[in-house]
Amino acid sequence: GAALDTRGDEVAFLRDRLYERGLSVLTIDIGVMGTPSCSADYGRQAVAQAGGRSLSELVEAARSGADRRQATDTMSQGAARIVRELRAAGKLDALVILGGSTAAAAAATVMKDLPLGLPKVLVTTFLSFAPAGIDDLVVLASPVDLLGLNRIVARTLDLAAGAVSGMLEREPSRHTAKPLAALTALGVTTPAVQRLSEYLSARGYDTVVFHATTEKLDRMTRDGLVDLVVDVTTFEMVPKVLYSDEVLALLSPFGRPDRLRLEALLQSGVPHVLAPGGLDMHIFPGATGIAQVPPEYRGRPWSMHGPSVVLVRTTAEELARIAQKFADQANRARGPVGVAIPLGGFSEASRPGAPLHDPAADRAFRSALRKCLRPDIPVAEAEGNINDEVFAEETVRLLERILSRKEPPWPPESQERRS
Amino acid sequence: GAALDTRGDEVAFLRDRLYERGLSVLTIDIGVMGTPSCSADYGRQAVAQAGGRSLSELVEAARSGADRRQATDTMSQGAARIVRELRAAGKLDALVILGGSTAAAAAATVMKDLPLGLPKVLVTTFLSFAPAGIDDLVVLASPVDLLGLNRIVARTLDLAAGAVSGMLEREPSRHTAKPLAALTALGVTTPAVQRLSEYLSARGYDTVVFHATTEKLDRMTRDGLVDLVVDVTTFEMVPKVLYSDEVLALLSPFGRPDRLRLEALLQSGVPHVLAPGGLDMHIFPGATGIAQVPPEYRGRPWSMHGPSVVLVRTTAEELARIAQKFADQANRARGPVGVAIPLGGFSEASRPGAPLHDPAADRAFRSALRKCLRPDIPVAEAEGNINDEVFAEETVRLLERILSRKEPPWPPESQERRS
Repeated sequence: GAALDTRGDEVAFLRDRLYERGLSVLTIDIGVMGTPSCSADYGRQAVAQAGGRSLSELVEAARSGADRRQATDTMSQGAARIVRELRAAGKLDALVILGGSTAAAAAATVMKDLPLGLPKVLVTTFLSFAPAGIDDLVVLASPVDLLGLNRIVARTLDLAAGAVSGMLEREPSRHTAKPLAALTALGVTTPAVQRLSEYLSARGYDTVVFHATTEKLDRMTRDGLVDLVVDVTTFEMVPKVLYSDEVLALLSPFGRPDRLRLEALLQSGVPHVLAPGGLDMHIFPGATGIAQVPPEYRGRPWSMHGPSVVLVRTTAEELARIAQKFADQANRARGPVGVAIPLGGFSEASRPGAPLHDPAADRAFRSALRKCLRPDIPVAEAEGNINDEVFAEETVRLLERILSRKEPPWPPESQERRS
Repeated sequence: GAALDTRGDEVAFLRDRLYERGLSVLTIDIGVMGTPSCSADYGRQAVAQAGGRSLSELVEAARSGADRRQATDTMSQGAARIVRELRAAGKLDALVILGGSTAAAAAATVMKDLPLGLPKVLVTTFLSFAPAGIDDLVVLASPVDLLGLNRIVARTLDLAAGAVSGMLEREPSRHTAKPLAALTALGVTTPAVQRLSEYLSARGYDTVVFHATTEKLDRMTRDGLVDLVVDVTTFEMVPKVLYSDEVLALLSPFGRPDRLRLEALLQSGVPHVLAPGGLDMHIFPGATGIAQVPPEYRGRPWSMHGPSVVLVRTTAEELARIAQKFADQANRARGPVGVAIPLGGFSEASRPGAPLHDPAADRAFRSALRKCLRPDIPVAEAEGNINDEVFAEETVRLLERILSRKEPPWPPESQERRS
């Protein structure tokens, strides 16, 4: 993909280099103004239409001085749709986007849903244009403007063609990768995550840890990369269940408020265990004391987590609301699922004696959860804090129990569960 | 290169994937603390020594709480030295650096002097870690921490190995690239650059334009990528000749004040023409009026260049000083060189009638220059502003004259001037 008015020569050159390396190439023109200098398999009219507008509308709007972003958004969405369709038809093995800041913006939209391991290359003048949120993006910095084909641009495009064809050249080396267990973490549950990782390693798993936000974990589950999820730190539910749309948008990647969590995991059938790690707190990063958190939280138990993060205790009422969502999440799982509850606090900050200790609130969570949970879902309770050995032991026992209900057994005999 | 205590397994895995693709691999350990988990061709002791310290010194300093950057700097410099030696010995065709922010910092040091087109790959967790200033860096974003080999990390390293081997797979497609002429530009000389580009294109050149700073152009000349330089906008000499070290450091890439300009070009023998484009001004970005520039400039002719850039006229005395350096630059050239002077102003802002118009100062430049210039260097003078047609015509005539003194003739018959 590229704008074929300004980058037509470059795209034609890159296409020829990819042809030379034995690849077939489809081109998508995401330009709006100007005249394409080379023809595209998906012309700008087709892209605009796939994005829900006509090209002439976009041109007219641009001429009348409309925000350039409107056109970029339409073309990006159109390109994303074409790419999705190509992928669904098995016709997409790699995607290259070429250009400046507009191309980088388009990359964010077009590439974000492509699976991990499918080569995604952005060739751009400024590394700083590279969009965030594309998990395995390859950015090739062009030393000079990609405007006009010259020896330097030719060399850059040679490298891009080489990188793409090299990445496509052979199947991933699957034999090296053990089955993968993903865990969720916050600083206040690190000991629990460490203990569980050790248990899992001893049972033949590789482990990978995700901090706080689970969007990336969810995409990886969808792409078939994860074999087991120990969602020990479900803290994310505190904002997702309790906060207003406005606040949630501020906290969400790319400002899109999203109350769903780990939807792909629920659909996937990947075995998983949930625990209430971190549900005992609101987190206020940037605050250096209780006076800097919103007034409605100031009357509660609180503590500092480092010099500029304030933790404030969740209430029994809040935890009862979260417990319903938590149960709902578990209830909707299509695969083996279990819940592990530590009776001595959901984080380091709520151990007996610690500032957020509040056993009544913890109990409110437990009883609301048990009321709503699907009766066939096993619950393990540990007499101790989430970071205590006993919790890890109980959780592993629960895992063994839920895994015994499905094939492959523990540990998976085959390392190739899905395509 | 990588720290083989924390990334040993990953490096070993990547090395094996590169072996599988038929490449030979040398590893460099840039770690300081911890114990390497795989052996390196260049161990951390050797790297520290190449960086001018002993590893035990660095370990001790780190233990006693010294700034971590000291160790990183030493290891980076050591690795850079090893890489330079490998390159000089013809043993380096590509470089991969793997890791987090420390590895990215090392990449900046180790990769910055490698020629364009030599594959340079940084595999890192955060795209935002990618260092600026490496002209054709490839950054591969790792979706998860590169700590512990798991299925996702393995896939990322597969892609990295593929990208490297693909980039090495074939020679650059030279046949497509015409000889390349580089021009220097500022907004106030854009019409001159456009006219000259058209002339050069008509004579069979590709063109590439560099704005204001010439470090990148100089590296490209050194790497044999540029066939002709029309240094029409030598504005950079204003700060490089006139400003204090402190101010110059603020304006320089990476804060390293450097009064040299286009040294590689002078050594290269590449034909070039110099003109005084932009020497008629100091530029104060961020200033919205004359009151916001340093007091010593406030009594001079000035104008706004857009809403937040103030241009202030250079004086006759300043221009006489610059002219000496300008002549010195031309005098030291090892190849064909000429000077073109527009008699009607060095930029759009100093045309007759424009705010910075000061023919007396312009004349001071011209006479100081003529006094210092090597007598065999041809000077073309144009009765008009730098942006007028007559200046472009005279400059092209000058180019034809200096190019006629050397092989290959105008335009170069062979497109392969250097290796």
